[in-house]
Amino acid sequence: MPQDIPEIIIGRLPLYLRVLTRLEKQGQEFTLSKELGEALNLSPAQIRKDLSQFGELGTRGQGYQIGFLIEKLRQILKLEEIRDMAVIGGGDVGHALARYEGFTNRGFQVTNIFDSDPGKIGSRMTGIVVQSSADMIQVLRENNIKVAILTTPAESAQGVTEQLVEAGVKAILNYAPIELKVPPDVHVEHIDPAVYLQKLSYYLEE
Amino acid sequence: MPQDIPEIIIGRLPLYLRVLTRLEKQGQEFTLSKELGEALNLSPAQIRKDLSQFGELGTRGQGYQIGFLIEKLRQILKLEEIRDMAVIGGGDVGHALARYEGFTNRGFQVTNIFDSDPGKIGSRMTGIVVQSSADMIQVLRENNIKVAILTTPAESAQGVTEQLVEAGVKAILNYAPIELKVPPDVHVEHIDPAVYLQKLSYYLEE
Repeated sequence: MPQDIPEIIIGRLPLYLRVLTRLEKQGQEFTLSKELGEALNLSPAQIRKDLSQFGELGTRGQGYQIGFLIEKLRQILKLEEIRDMAVIGGGDVGHALARYEGFTNRGFQVTNIFDSDPGKIGSRMTGIVVQSSADMIQVLRENNIKVAILTTPAESAQGVTEQLVEAGVKAILNYAPIELKVPPDVHVEHIDPAVYLQKLSYYLEE
Repeated sequence: MPQDIPEIIIGRLPLYLRVLTRLEKQGQEFTLSKELGEALNLSPAQIRKDLSQFGELGTRGQGYQIGFLIEKLRQILKLEEIRDMAVIGGGDVGHALARYEGFTNRGFQVTNIFDSDPGKIGSRMTGIVVQSSADMIQVLRENNIKVAILTTPAESAQGVTEQLVEAGVKAILNYAPIELKVPPDVHVEHIDPAVYLQKLSYYLEE
């Protein structure tokens, strides 16, 4: 597989996967770039261009076989085994993530939660015992955890991020309302509800 | 302004706004499509193409004046006045949104929270009194609230959505792990952490 696929295309693959999974659940066996395009607000040409980066995944006329394309996308995105994740911060968002149903069958599970509050350490959140932030680096290393979800307040987010990097974490999903600085081999995605709301605002009538 | 700007471009405008606001805070006055492209993982040509949809916003050589471009994007996205929003569901996510600091100066404020749990109705979350779901349609109509954030469990999300539509809500930010069905004049954005994690997964070494 070529190593220089634009990040914007990689970012769309999970959206393809979500639509394909829905179509598969509905009992559909094949789909066309037109159908995928309508579901994702992209042109059929863009869909074909995106997917052609990864080889010949469809057939002219017949389109894409859904089960095959799902399998292929899961391979490309390295989702074939369930990855362990640590949630940093046992507050409202951390708690919600610990019992979030949307991770099921999508490649991830929360295995650890860390907090610095002595009142929370040792308590259980959806079966997971909250661990002390003081032990975070060691526990992450010992368990070879590469993915972390950051839910701390904005003011501690950069400091915690530096500890995550030190612990060998390579992927951070950031819920804190702040942009994080990380080395080039660490990837960050930012969950920023205001970005979605601002897009929605465009479509509202005055 | 043309009415047929692709949704994918509209979706990028809030990201431009976020980067520009950061640059402005750093004291910078001008930026180039190259700088914006690097911050957003897009080619400079794509940046220029996106922004040219809205007129002549930059000058060759000098680039974009940051303050002007921010003003213009806020106008396009209809962010000039603060919009009231209702949070549906007073659980962990609802609570976190009520005190989320990332909405400040970005065009939105949470004014109402609704829940169906009698134990929560009447309690305060960050100064907002939780109201009964039974009154939701009436309160939303009376206050002309067009934006709602849905944080209910997956199984009640579609039913609540139908009530929101009935109340005249036109924009829904959905945190429930389910795809919502809405009429064509209602817009939905889906906060789906698994989509971000799956993208991050691509960049992890095996």
